[in-house]
Amino acid sequence: MVVAALARTVLRHPAARFILHGDETALKALLAKRAKLAERITIRHAAEQVRMEEKPSLALRRGRNTSMWRAIESVKNKEAEVIVSAGNTGALMAMSMFQLGVLDGISRPAIAAIWPTKRGQSIVLDVGANISCDAEQLVDFAVMGEAFARAILGLERPTVGLLNVGSEDAKGHDAVKSAAHLLRNASLPMEYAGFVEGGDISDGTVDVVVTDGFTGNVALKTAEGTARLVVHFLRQALRSSFFGRIGGLIASGALKALRRKLDPSSSNGGIFLGLNGIVVKSHGGADAMGFAGALDMAIDMADAGVIARIVADRANMISATIEAAAS
Amino acid sequence: MVVAALARTVLRHPAARFILHGDETALKALLAKRAKLAERITIRHAAEQVRMEEKPSLALRRGRNTSMWRAIESVKNKEAEVIVSAGNTGALMAMSMFQLGVLDGISRPAIAAIWPTKRGQSIVLDVGANISCDAEQLVDFAVMGEAFARAILGLERPTVGLLNVGSEDAKGHDAVKSAAHLLRNASLPMEYAGFVEGGDISDGTVDVVVTDGFTGNVALKTAEGTARLVVHFLRQALRSSFFGRIGGLIASGALKALRRKLDPSSSNGGIFLGLNGIVVKSHGGADAMGFAGALDMAIDMADAGVIARIVADRANMISATIEAAAS
Repeated sequence: MVVAALARTVLRHPAARFILHGDETALKALLAKRAKLAERITIRHAAEQVRMEEKPSLALRRGRNTSMWRAIESVKNKEAEVIVSAGNTGALMAMSMFQLGVLDGISRPAIAAIWPTKRGQSIVLDVGANISCDAEQLVDFAVMGEAFARAILGLERPTVGLLNVGSEDAKGHDAVKSAAHLLRNASLPMEYAGFVEGGDISDGTVDVVVTDGFTGNVALKTAEGTARLVVHFLRQALRSSFFGRIGGLIASGALKALRRKLDPSSSNGGIFLGLNGIVVKSHGGADAMGFAGALDMAIDMADAGVIARIVADRANMISATIEAAAS
Repeated sequence: MVVAALARTVLRHPAARFILHGDETALKALLAKRAKLAERITIRHAAEQVRMEEKPSLALRRGRNTSMWRAIESVKNKEAEVIVSAGNTGALMAMSMFQLGVLDGISRPAIAAIWPTKRGQSIVLDVGANISCDAEQLVDFAVMGEAFARAILGLERPTVGLLNVGSEDAKGHDAVKSAAHLLRNASLPMEYAGFVEGGDISDGTVDVVVTDGFTGNVALKTAEGTARLVVHFLRQALRSSFFGRIGGLIASGALKALRRKLDPSSSNGGIFLGLNGIVVKSHGGADAMGFAGALDMAIDMADAGVIARIVADRANMISATIEAAAS
């Protein structure tokens, strides 16, 4: 799957070079028939691998010889600019934090997802790295998400919303209310748009939706489940009548395009933000097309200098906060 | 809208009688042309009404002459068995708690939603009454949701899951982990199925999904937004090609049925569980068909004796817990 994805990505990014970490014999055999691709790939042998269900703490302790550890190490050593993995999310985060370290001034890294909306795409974070978050962390996520939206969605001034159960000031728990207060009063160079609700994510009301990792993870998986349910209902509806079946057959090309659009692997990957290095997590069940999407995103992130932007924004924000406090 | 909904509901429930609280002159005018319906309706004049954006605390203080207060009062006085309202949710909850009181042994009421799934329908609670919940509250919600599923979905032994970010024991925050421990070890007469994830709700993995009101509210609104998005994509896909347009036209009956199925007003209404009385909250934007759905659900709940079941289950649970502690 990874090699097939690389074959797609090299066509779009002729300048990119790749280091493949894993079982050397197996990888060599896969590349044997692809001489052109093999020229742009360096294979690094790793004897072990992190299992999908392995506890992050265990993986971190015993994992120095795994392909995941080595891949992160190659970013740490500046041999590579980005790591892309479809492996165990928790282990990838733990190893990335340990090896790459967290950006100065950022309390905790977050996982960002690119979410399809009526207006295009939005960024939602955190979708699973931090189970509970205080106001300061939510503000960090807003800063990171905004920098990311500028870099990846190409927006000059992305709007940022805090996910809540209503749009009125008095709604929500303490963390979200305090974060709103900070974002409103910090005179940040950021278009803070206030509270948004669950329905606003898919509507595309704002470009960046900020939430804690528990709520974000539930929202993301609920949305994926709902998309599957609607497609299931659509199939049922088309099968339930003669005209439905005929119409469905005639429109089958359009309906296939719809299914591709809703396939989670097409807007594939969580991005770990807040680390001294770029880490892209591809969906565990991704196919070659999905993994190629994650590779493309990783290359775009490196080109756009996302990390430098986050560092600069966070510094601006701290000085803005200090100025506000002093005045 | 309410009168039109009543006209639909009386056909399905010939024995039901209704008390309409509101402006007497306006209501009389609406019923003037419907003599048959008017026979089964008692009008009670209420000079004021709770506004949609009014703060619950204010509504509670100044609200004794509102139609909402009076409607709840008629349940408290045993003149009515159920109240159905499409008004301000927060005010309805505050006034219901104040007038009806909370069931013995239940820490806080919750709002339950009926969620369409691949396998039929599931109950999700809390979808907005309690912003943060401890383990004890989540266990209460499990007990209430299970009794509700037996009464309304007609299931003998509904399965109950706790919403979390993964299915492993170590996942999630303290409240959800402690609630899982309580549910697993209380030897309750309940089919506790463990943790479920966001995607499991629409898949229908369990019959009852238990969560705090913040997460549940975000999940519900995210699902509604995603359903709108998929329908939007479907429309775009069908419009984008000649065959798509033709196929869509031929299958238009089936596609209309799909839209009706996805219309939030068709699985309409949150149900307040845990009060000494049945309160059904209809969607604010419901049409007559949607409000009639809420009326039907309310009548079913009264017939099924949901409250008596919750009280009995909660008592069983407390004795089971005491026995477990003693042994």
